[in-house]
Amino acid sequence: MVDGIYESDEAYKKIERQLEEMLDKAFNQGAEEMQRRGFKRRVGFGTRPAVIHIDMANAWTRPGHAFTCRNMDTIIPACQDLNAAARAKGVPVIFITTHYNVLNASVPSDMGLWSQKIPLETLDASTGAADIDSRIAPQPGELVITKKRASAFPGTFLNQFLTANRIDTLLVTGVTASACVRNTIEDAMAEGFRPIAVREAIGDRVAGTVAWNLFDIDNKFGDVENVGTVVDYLNNLPNFDDTTPTTSLAAADPDHRAVV
Amino acid sequence: MVDGIYESDEAYKKIERQLEEMLDKAFNQGAEEMQRRGFKRRVGFGTRPAVIHIDMANAWTRPGHAFTCRNMDTIIPACQDLNAAARAKGVPVIFITTHYNVLNASVPSDMGLWSQKIPLETLDASTGAADIDSRIAPQPGELVITKKRASAFPGTFLNQFLTANRIDTLLVTGVTASACVRNTIEDAMAEGFRPIAVREAIGDRVAGTVAWNLFDIDNKFGDVENVGTVVDYLNNLPNFDDTTPTTSLAAADPDHRAVV
Amino acid sequence: MVDGIYESDEAYKKIERQLEEMLDKAFNQGAEEMQRRGFKRRVGFGTRPAVIHIDMANAWTRPGHAFTCRNMDTIIPACQDLNAAARAKGVPVIFITTHYNVLNASVPSDMGLWSQKIPLETLDASTGAADIDSRIAPQPGELVITKKRASAFPGTFLNQFLTANRIDTLLVTGVTASACVRNTIEDAMAEGFRPIAVREAIGDRVAGTVAWNLFDIDNKFGDVENVGTVVDYLNNLPNFDDTTPTTSLAAADPDHRAVV
Amino acid sequence: MVDGIYESDEAYKKIERQLEEMLDKAFNQGAEEMQRRGFKRRVGFGTRPAVIHIDMANAWTRPGHAFTCRNMDTIIPACQDLNAAARAKGVPVIFITTHYNVLNASVPSDMGLWSQKIPLETLDASTGAADIDSRIAPQPGELVITKKRASAFPGTFLNQFLTANRIDTLLVTGVTASACVRNTIEDAMAEGFRPIAVREAIGDRVAGTVAWNLFDIDNKFGDVENVGTVVDYLNNLPNFDDTTPTTSLAAADPDHRAVV
Repeated sequence: MVDGIYESDEAYKKIERQLEEMLDKAFNQGAEEMQRRGFKRRVGFGTRPAVIHIDMANAWTRPGHAFTCRNMDTIIPACQDLNAAARAKGVPVIFITTHYNVLNASVPSDMGLWSQKIPLETLDASTGAADIDSRIAPQPGELVITKKRASAFPGTFLNQFLTANRIDTLLVTGVTASACVRNTIEDAMAEGFRPIAVREAIGDRVAGTVAWNLFDIDNKFGDVENVGTVVDYLNNLPNFDDTTPTTSLAAADPDHRAVV
Repeated sequence: MVDGIYESDEAYKKIERQLEEMLDKAFNQGAEEMQRRGFKRRVGFGTRPAVIHIDMANAWTRPGHAFTCRNMDTIIPACQDLNAAARAKGVPVIFITTHYNVLNASVPSDMGLWSQKIPLETLDASTGAADIDSRIAPQPGELVITKKRASAFPGTFLNQFLTANRIDTLLVTGVTASACVRNTIEDAMAEGFRPIAVREAIGDRVAGTVAWNLFDIDNKFGDVENVGTVVDYLNNLPNFDDTTPTTSLAAADPDHRAVV
Repeated sequence: MVDGIYESDEAYKKIERQLEEMLDKAFNQGAEEMQRRGFKRRVGFGTRPAVIHIDMANAWTRPGHAFTCRNMDTIIPACQDLNAAARAKGVPVIFITTHYNVLNASVPSDMGLWSQKIPLETLDASTGAADIDSRIAPQPGELVITKKRASAFPGTFLNQFLTANRIDTLLVTGVTASACVRNTIEDAMAEGFRPIAVREAIGDRVAGTVAWNLFDIDNKFGDVENVGTVVDYLNNLPNFDDTTPTTSLAAADPDHRAVV
Repeated sequence: MVDGIYESDEAYKKIERQLEEMLDKAFNQGAEEMQRRGFKRRVGFGTRPAVIHIDMANAWTRPGHAFTCRNMDTIIPACQDLNAAARAKGVPVIFITTHYNVLNASVPSDMGLWSQKIPLETLDASTGAADIDSRIAPQPGELVITKKRASAFPGTFLNQFLTANRIDTLLVTGVTASACVRNTIEDAMAEGFRPIAVREAIGDRVAGTVAWNLFDIDNKFGDVENVGTVVDYLNNLPNFDDTTPTTSLAAADPDHRAVV
């Protein structure tokens, strides 16, 4: 892999800066239009959250893999801050990773058709590629759930865990914005959990991808919030044992509009 | 609603053109990078398909709704062409729509938390808003499935229908690229069906949204193909009754790379 | 159909009485064994319930259908009592029914493979067979969910509705004990809801079937309680709007053992 | 645990024999009634099967556990015969087991509410309790899927695996008849797979339980077949690589009725 070369390419960096400027203009115009139509409301924070880290495992967080993502210098510390704040209150911290038992698409394999699209054959668990990055290592009693698709919901016991424990809010970090993070947020909203996408803690691989996925998410599937806001929210919670979930679905304050 | 004004705004059109040029550059660079890493493979067409139209109902396809989408002059004819080709071979055509029984978020409602984010309260089925657009009306015996979330998979019987009938490929049209179409394609791939996104038959609301969602889809979740290619595929199929599904998961031809 | 003849058959009635006596002995012995092993605990009532009626539609509740069940003289009044108690507190009442769009298994049909096993082709919605029995008719704003399989969970939006509205307990009635009621209770427990099977409000078709299914349910999947107990529970609840769900999963009182 | 004492209790054995005689009479009468109504059809064998063993792990197959089941002297050899026949043809063999990460219901635990009903806290994976019985050990490349509920379908990737690999038939063994085997068969039928319950390879804990659950299954959810019949079916298949799934849903031969 040549991530280093890629990220240091001056021509690429210039395109990226221009793209971001252009996207900002488009997002401002688009956000205004979506708000005018009644989209981009705030789902808001509930009262009984969990933190969920999507695919923060070595194949995504370390250099040299097909799945390697950018900006770990920002993402890892943001995840660490969230974990510290959550654990101080007994808020559950959940880790999701992705790997396969049979890395050969020519026999019945748990990679399924997705191996036809992306390089799942490189996710060899025996190499540690699917282990959670040691910088945000799970503590004893924290769940690590392995999935076989982009979303952490269908095909895992995540939903049963959240429901049985009466969680009402998911504080979401990880990679990638364009696949596993987004798909998990789409399902979280549908299943009845308030998804909060932690902006600084979400990454991807190529220019613009994080930006346009957060734009779509904030319009339709969850609130995009800064890590500071989310840490403050956790700091102001009672201990998890003393929380009860929010039951109101009352329409959000129509004047409370966020701008990404 | 003021869709007409919006689409005729010259300043907006200019930003849109600039954005598209900029996105094209970014997509070319990004696609190259994703291919180098082994993403953006072709999942390819199977041998026993169904056509699925996502939310091609009046609230999305006609002017004047909060959910109204753009480009129906292109999208509707593309859907009509697909339907004609599919029906000629007995290939199932499935229609998905979205509406709710209880349009009041202050009581137990089937809108769930999504009503906190987007204007579900405007999807009043008694007004015909959720009826499939009459220009692509379902024929007797064709399924119309109502969903309550973005994806057509969890929370509906779509998956059971596809499995029981041994479908292997989903030819996907509809709106919106950034929500229901994309989320359905993400799940289709995960559940073991080959998703083909029909480029000209997919729409959305604000500038750039179709483009970046098709970019993400083609990288990771399904093949983006022109409507002509998909119609040719249908024309070359035997009658549906004589088809059997493809069983091979063998890795796709690494030289067969599409450019979106 | 000859339900009348069947139920008045004296030889059959005699076998049924003998069977019930024999089953009672077996259940006593089996319950003791299961308790000794640590099964048959009480999941107990939560604090934010919903009532759910499974397949209390005409094909099951009225004579003359392939699906007709027995004991409606007991089951209907029990359901009516539950509805009155629930509605007085604003507790949601949910109705489940089953029917199909395409009643022909030789074409792509939503009956799926189940049509190979049971007479789904008789569930013709145009005859009113799938309408909820008018004696327990839904009131405006109460959900009626159509399913295509035994369980009311996978393939419907029931789970999203329950989660979004923070329900913690399902008070379950209907038919049949051996299929849709049992399968729904199995899933309710797994998904994190406390299932209460209302004994007098659950029916089936042939001798012994209700008894052994309630035995299995009480051992493993939910508490079997008398309708009087369940109505008392509802009467003692605050108004639904003032409830919050139970968050504790602490082990049930090991001395609290029910005998079916 | 005192399984040995239990099974050697003469008084219990007598009740069990009487119960079985009585159940046989009831089943004959009930089966006739169900057939007359159009139930108890044959779903039949498809052409591209997988073998699935439910919870054939030490806590269920070895003496001394809360979950220990009876009749392993019959069940284990039947599973071995199936495995040999399946592996000879390259037919996938799938193993399901159940265990939990957090065995303490007073903290957020993956045991969920089920721990309120049955002794999940005894399923300590560190003791080997959840390992597949070595007498039917998985071979390299065979999937072992861990579940957290009775059914092997929701909450696992089983469905995606079966669909992606175009399986049409599930040959089901294991324990218990009244919980995990039955619930898996209910879901298999609903999801579009032909469930075959292998009579001699299915067990449970207390008298009568296997019998009435197979009776309900054969009426409504899958065909109950002898292990000899299933092994013959496997022996007569082509190699798995050369199979394609059955696409016909045509109504089963109404004259082909099995008697359990």
